[in-house]
Amino acid sequence: MGDVIRALTAADRAAVCRILQACGAFTPEEVAVALELVDDAIVRGGEGDYRAFVADRGDEVRGYVCIGKTPMTATTWHLYWMCVDPEAWGRGVGRALQAYVETFVRRSGGERLVLEASSQPGARRARRFYEANGYRQTGRIPDFYKPDDDCLIYCKALT
Amino acid sequence: MGDVIRALTAADRAAVCRILQACGAFTPEEVAVALELVDDAIVRGGEGDYRAFVADRGDEVRGYVCIGKTPMTATTWHLYWMCVDPEAWGRGVGRALQAYVETFVRRSGGERLVLEASSQPGARRARRFYEANGYRQTGRIPDFYKPDDDCLIYCKALT
Repeated sequence: MGDVIRALTAADRAAVCRILQACGAFTPEEVAVALELVDDAIVRGGEGDYRAFVADRGDEVRGYVCIGKTPMTATTWHLYWMCVDPEAWGRGVGRALQAYVETFVRRSGGERLVLEASSQPGARRARRFYEANGYRQTGRIPDFYKPDDDCLIYCKALT
Repeated sequence: MGDVIRALTAADRAAVCRILQACGAFTPEEVAVALELVDDAIVRGGEGDYRAFVADRGDEVRGYVCIGKTPMTATTWHLYWMCVDPEAWGRGVGRALQAYVETFVRRSGGERLVLEASSQPGARRARRFYEANGYRQTGRIPDFYKPDDDCLIYCKALT
C-alpha cells in the first residue's frame, strides 16, 4: 500500500524522533538539530524558513523530509533532512518523499534543490539514493564534519 | 595608523549598517540578513552561533567580520560576512580582520574556515582577496543566487 505524503504536524514529532534515532545515521547532536528544524516547521508553518512533510501509511509515519527556501537566493531551496524508518527501507518511501518535495518546490517557484551529505561509509546509502535521483555532486569540503569526513554538496536542477 | 580589532558591540551597529550599504556589494535583503547575524552576536555573545569583530581606527569603525562555529562539525567554522568601508579600501583593514579571526578560530580549536562568494563581477574583489589569503575554491553551485550567479565555496585549512 502506498504512503500518503502530507504536512508534518506536532502529533508526528515523537515518530520522527524515533525514526531519526532508529536509522542509525545521525549523532545525538544531529538528531537535536533535525528536531529544531522540525519544531520550527510545526510552529511557524508556511511563515517560517522550514517546511516538513511525512510519509504516512495510515497507521504509522514511516519517514519525513525537511526543506526550505535558501535565504538570499532567487529560486534555490535546500533539502535539509530526509529520513526513512529502516523497517520501511526498499519500499519507495524515500522516493515518494523526494518526488513530493520536488513538485512542492517547483510549484513554489523553486528551480533547484541543494543538499549536503557526508563522505563516510555510513552515508553511502543516502548518497546513492540522491545520485540515482538526479542529484549531481558540485562541491566537496575536505574534513568538514570531522577528519576524513568530507562535506559533499549536491544540486538538482528542477527546470 | 593601524586599526584595533575588537569585539563588535551594540554601539557599532549603525556604523556596520552604513558600511554594508556603502560597499555596494549587497542587496537590501542581504544587508538585513547580515544585520540579523550582527544582532545575534551582540545579544548572545559567546553563547550564540555568531561572533562579530570590528576594525576600529579610534574615532571610527572601518570594517567588520562575522564568523561562527559550523553546527554539526568538529572543528569547522564559517566566515559569514566581511565588509570594509570603501573609503578605507587598500589600507589592510580586510587583511587585519582576516588575520584576527583566523587566530581567534585557531585558539578556539577550529581547524578550517569555510565561506561562500558570488561568481558575479561585483564580487571579484572579494574573491581575489580570499584567494590571495589562502582560500581554495572547493565547490560551485550553478545559478545558486540567481541565473548566472553561482555560489563559489572556499575553504582554508588553519592547521
